[in-house]
Amino acid sequence: MQELRGKIIADQIKGECLDFVGQYNGILPALAILRVGHKEADLSYERSIKKRFMDFGLEAKDYELPENVSNEEFQQVFDFINQDPEIHGILVMRPLPKQIDEAAMLRKMNPLKDLDGITDTNVAGVMRGDADAFAPCTAQAVVEILKGHQIEMAGKEVCIIGRSMVVGKPLSMLLLQENATVTVCHSKTEDLKAVTSRADILVAAIGKAKFISSGYVKEDATVIDVGINVDEAGNLCGDCDWDQIILKAGAATPVPGGVGTVTTAVLAKHLVQAAKLQMKLAPIDDSADEYLS
Amino acid sequence: MQELRGKIIADQIKGECLDFVGQYNGILPALAILRVGHKEADLSYERSIKKRFMDFGLEAKDYELPENVSNEEFQQVFDFINQDPEIHGILVMRPLPKQIDEAAMLRKMNPLKDLDGITDTNVAGVMRGDADAFAPCTAQAVVEILKGHQIEMAGKEVCIIGRSMVVGKPLSMLLLQENATVTVCHSKTEDLKAVTSRADILVAAIGKAKFISSGYVKEDATVIDVGINVDEAGNLCGDCDWDQIILKAGAATPVPGGVGTVTTAVLAKHLVQAAKLQMKLAPIDDSADEYLS
Repeated sequence: MQELRGKIIADQIKGECLDFVGQYNGILPALAILRVGHKEADLSYERSIKKRFMDFGLEAKDYELPENVSNEEFQQVFDFINQDPEIHGILVMRPLPKQIDEAAMLRKMNPLKDLDGITDTNVAGVMRGDADAFAPCTAQAVVEILKGHQIEMAGKEVCIIGRSMVVGKPLSMLLLQENATVTVCHSKTEDLKAVTSRADILVAAIGKAKFISSGYVKEDATVIDVGINVDEAGNLCGDCDWDQIILKAGAATPVPGGVGTVTTAVLAKHLVQAAKLQMKLAPIDDSADEYLS
Repeated sequence: MQELRGKIIADQIKGECLDFVGQYNGILPALAILRVGHKEADLSYERSIKKRFMDFGLEAKDYELPENVSNEEFQQVFDFINQDPEIHGILVMRPLPKQIDEAAMLRKMNPLKDLDGITDTNVAGVMRGDADAFAPCTAQAVVEILKGHQIEMAGKEVCIIGRSMVVGKPLSMLLLQENATVTVCHSKTEDLKAVTSRADILVAAIGKAKFISSGYVKEDATVIDVGINVDEAGNLCGDCDWDQIILKAGAATPVPGGVGTVTTAVLAKHLVQAAKLQMKLAPIDDSADEYLS
């Protein structure tokens, strides 16, 4: 069985990012991470982004607000980031506390800074198949892994387990764009095993540790594990039972070291795309080169 | 085999529309049909809408522009309709001629008047499963037919052939919301028959006369035919070969008299919803009743 490691894909993206920064010296693409409160999962994601972005030659600034911040204050900070021309992308750690008017934030958000594809413009753009629309980074990471490892999608049967706005739904649209035949399953699917074991490519985005055993997998299928869970022993694990999957699948992503690794890299790739799109709208004055360099 | 006629569903919707008009006398929900040029298909659709709306107690006004209208003039007419408080819904006959900036129109369009779900707000709302979002009328008509004829969707395997923004893609989202397991097929699907003949509910939105023979259909499946084509003899027909389908399916929609009949009724239903939503935002002054009645 082929282990589909994320690192090779992340390294390719790293190369593209460093090339961009080298070409446009003086323009440092900058991400704003907006976090309310101190959830450990958010802090851990933030640390991994900051470490990764440093390697990639990109900037990641954190904007931290207390758990009990007022909606007014939150919106002020958001407006500042959203309008700052030196911030090219925004990642909002969600869910936000109840007092925050998330819908109001989404209506204001500049779609060109919306790296995780949460605004209407990007959600609709992904459905239409617009090349410039930002898809949620995790959904995009699945496609990047398949493309990067030269796994054919066109005409193939892909089954996605999970119908969230972060993975299942947008990923189904991205895969249709790649000419796959796409099935979306979920908790209400009757006879899940029968459906998943037809798939040439199986994507698990369930959120249940080691849920997918070999009985769900077609012989020689490609298995993409989007889950990040903790098993009984306290170890990080995916939605798939790795020891069983490797006996049946033709290729599979490990957890950790698979989709998660690529997700942060896609965030970086989106930041560079966002910086390009924003510069296209407001072209750089050549004379600024002297000032910046 | 059960013939799933659209009329029974359209009659239910007619009842709801007449009830609304009866309750809110003085408020006449009005649709603006914006048409550029004289394509026969557009004219035929427009005639059927106007006839239907008259029966339903609703108003449909047509705004006709010549094929060579300038973009500036088109946008002026559009702005007028979009801002007119006595127009509650807009249907734009598409595709528009090349000189018209359709993207500019979509950015301006009031989502509450967007009865065919073409704005980003409604496209994204349908993907999120928002109850107030308008889906394209044809996609919604498929769900109305299944619901109206009490055909179970939850947990069932539904296969949609076609991935357009008018039917396939939004319908896949509506059916996920109904807890169906949804597969989307298209021209690049390998072994289409194998995929479609697994489906408990098969939706054909291909645009090829009589393409679907009995070999594509599972025994006793429900078949929904979205196609409107003309056969060699010049008669209206669907994407399914009716003579073959009836031997195998458990239930099927005829063409004409199936999905098409319900699509115009859904447009009427959406207009009433739009009028309600717009009144909610700007509540009616009670004193106006005397003036209006």
